[in-house]
Amino acid sequence: MRENPDVGAVLDALDDGLPAALNRLMQFLRIPSISTDPAHAADVRRAAGWLCDELAALGFDAAVHDTAGHPMVVARTPPGPSRTLLFYGHYDVQPVDPLSLWDRAPFDPAIEDTPAGPVIRGRGASDDKGQLMTFVEACRAWKVVHGTLPDGLILLFEGEEESGSPSLQPFLRANADALRASLALICDTALYADGRPAITTQLRGLMGEEIVVRAADRDLHSGSFGGLAANPIQVLVTALAAVKDADGRVTLPGFYDGVAELSDTLREDWQGLGFDPADYLSRVGLGTPIGERGRSGLEMVWNRPTFEINGISGGYTGEGFKTVLPAEARAKVSCRLVGTQDPEAVRAALRAHVRAHLPPDCRVEFHAHGSSPASVMDTSDPGFDAARAALSAEWGREAAFIGAGGSIPIAGDFKTILGMDTMLIGFARDDDRIHSPNEKYDVESFAKGARSWARILAALR
Amino acid sequence: MRENPDVGAVLDALDDGLPAALNRLMQFLRIPSISTDPAHAADVRRAAGWLCDELAALGFDAAVHDTAGHPMVVARTPPGPSRTLLFYGHYDVQPVDPLSLWDRAPFDPAIEDTPAGPVIRGRGASDDKGQLMTFVEACRAWKVVHGTLPDGLILLFEGEEESGSPSLQPFLRANADALRASLALICDTALYADGRPAITTQLRGLMGEEIVVRAADRDLHSGSFGGLAANPIQVLVTALAAVKDADGRVTLPGFYDGVAELSDTLREDWQGLGFDPADYLSRVGLGTPIGERGRSGLEMVWNRPTFEINGISGGYTGEGFKTVLPAEARAKVSCRLVGTQDPEAVRAALRAHVRAHLPPDCRVEFHAHGSSPASVMDTSDPGFDAARAALSAEWGREAAFIGAGGSIPIAGDFKTILGMDTMLIGFARDDDRIHSPNEKYDVESFAKGARSWARILAALR
Repeated sequence: MRENPDVGAVLDALDDGLPAALNRLMQFLRIPSISTDPAHAADVRRAAGWLCDELAALGFDAAVHDTAGHPMVVARTPPGPSRTLLFYGHYDVQPVDPLSLWDRAPFDPAIEDTPAGPVIRGRGASDDKGQLMTFVEACRAWKVVHGTLPDGLILLFEGEEESGSPSLQPFLRANADALRASLALICDTALYADGRPAITTQLRGLMGEEIVVRAADRDLHSGSFGGLAANPIQVLVTALAAVKDADGRVTLPGFYDGVAELSDTLREDWQGLGFDPADYLSRVGLGTPIGERGRSGLEMVWNRPTFEINGISGGYTGEGFKTVLPAEARAKVSCRLVGTQDPEAVRAALRAHVRAHLPPDCRVEFHAHGSSPASVMDTSDPGFDAARAALSAEWGREAAFIGAGGSIPIAGDFKTILGMDTMLIGFARDDDRIHSPNEKYDVESFAKGARSWARILAALR
Repeated sequence: MRENPDVGAVLDALDDGLPAALNRLMQFLRIPSISTDPAHAADVRRAAGWLCDELAALGFDAAVHDTAGHPMVVARTPPGPSRTLLFYGHYDVQPVDPLSLWDRAPFDPAIEDTPAGPVIRGRGASDDKGQLMTFVEACRAWKVVHGTLPDGLILLFEGEEESGSPSLQPFLRANADALRASLALICDTALYADGRPAITTQLRGLMGEEIVVRAADRDLHSGSFGGLAANPIQVLVTALAAVKDADGRVTLPGFYDGVAELSDTLREDWQGLGFDPADYLSRVGLGTPIGERGRSGLEMVWNRPTFEINGISGGYTGEGFKTVLPAEARAKVSCRLVGTQDPEAVRAALRAHVRAHLPPDCRVEFHAHGSSPASVMDTSDPGFDAARAALSAEWGREAAFIGAGGSIPIAGDFKTILGMDTMLIGFARDDDRIHSPNEKYDVESFAKGARSWARILAALR
């Protein structure tokens, strides 16, 4: 990492330009680019155009690219001596219903004063227009000071993130050579609790499966057949219960292949976060972690695989009672995966387990739903430590390497299709109400977010 | 048992009167007495009136008794030297939909020739108008020969059997002294397989329970909480799976209290029935009994208690997938009970079992649904052997004492409220399509059913 003497000037330029930057964000937020709603297709395209124009005006080589769905915006600067970086964000937003729960029109954004400081209120303020503009504004200030944009940048903005990103993988595959960089940056995550900056370095993967157990060719009366005939609910329940032992460990053979113990560095980092599982659970009316025995709370959520039953149905579930042995029972189950666990190997082990629990006369049908390995970034890339130092300097608190319990499929796609790791850095807060009425983004997140990117860009030169 | 020299004359009178008896049954079947449909309330009352008039014309002291629902018909003969007998049947019928699947109008009955012999086709032909008329016709023939009806008879006909008998218990309680007899007779069951006559001497009881497990105060995302927070489906499934062991035995403490081994006599009787579980199961697309290990097929269905999950639901069960940890999961479960098992003791053991499987943070809610002990008749009452001999003589095959896997609540009510055992004797066949389109009753069942009752009445004098 080279020291860059001019970063102070870029930060000053950002501070000076904050009112204008907020004005630009307001313009962007006024475009109702709801990607799931076909009635807003023109608005989505308008948002892409607005963004492309901004970037072109700044000096990027920018274009709107059509896809089978909503367009992609790609903007680039010429290659130079620095490593190439791909920055990803999305310009589409979630629907706004229920509209009645909003305190102001969702696409009439405003700066509002709150006890915790000023916030930008409006749909997309946090997810993801406000966040992606932190990077754009950092580039703008860079140009003010240096006269040119940073070299080797590729900016990729998607308009379908809130509707499942159907065009993303095809676009990455079709344009792999043009999009490949040495590292990806994604600004779509949050600060760690109480505002501590963080880089997400690992994400859990997912294996989803639907299981249908069938026995008799019709529903049976338990008076005539109970005790003699197979009951698919009983069979399913018995098989599912046996997937975990009394310590909360998964019993499927080979399940833990590829699950590594936490490194000492990460263990120390995570301990330093002071995560209190009881406090975390108390937000949803719970208080006691009941996961795998002998694991810390953050390990359970970030670094251990899970088996969960997400849905189950069978037999009579209406009012009253019916003494039926149903013809079939169904469950949707999923595993969160870590390390190098192979989703398809886990699926195969689960299927074998269920088959081994099938009594004679029962049949089982499986439907695969989702399969993505965990993403574990190679933090020995010096970019990670450089970015950590930059974030720590900006926020006055040591930035943490953290995990995420969920999946962010695009990070996996960048790895699989473009062969690059991703630094997930974001400035949202847990109370931003993304996907909900009254979404907001703290002005502090916006301002210090842009300053963070300026420092990171400097550190990665 | 006294020999009655005149039974042959009564049987001859029945044979001579068969065409007229069939005509009377046709009149009865033309009344659409569907008890669950309020639109047919007047028809139900008309059927009660028709029946009452028939009985009064025959010389019974007969009356229609109002209840909170549909009326009861009670008819009696004066007490005499013979033991008192209460005969029960029901004059209401099931709905007819889907009407399009009927080959003739359900309330336009007719005698139809079939390869297996002539049948009476129409709603209620078997369940239960045709069956109850076998007893009425036996009484009529008795009077033709003897000049008087049999002494000590009480006939009780209900109009709500197909809609849950809500008025029956109150009526029995309010009229207990007037209805008490030394033995009850119910004609609402079937011949054993391939037409062998049978007396059902034991019925399983029932304990139904609904279990609701709750954890977080909202649905949780498995990415954020999976591995840490309690999953109510997992908790419920684990508790339910542990109710049975690998041999199919129920593990609840005290569950088998009151469950007796089969007597040698019954074991021999049942073995003689040549029940083939594989054949029985093949009718519903199955082939292998998977109940309690080491028990014969008929034991499993008639003489062993069960635990069955009748319905289960929780989490996301729609199309596609949702990686949710739901806030709650529900199951409806029931036990079929035998011997002197106490339904409430079983319920308490089940609740304690579920509570013992609850992790911290989870709550459980129970809802009781149904509670009736098994009915085991005292077959040392000489009436049972007398009836068995009478049935054997009529059908030319040894009548069997059999069990029933289901519950017939009225037999339990007769025991509990009126203190009397019941002989369940019926002449329906498994292919009568009761509750379904194209219901029928074999003319042979009707004719030999009436002759059977004539023999039984004679044998019980």
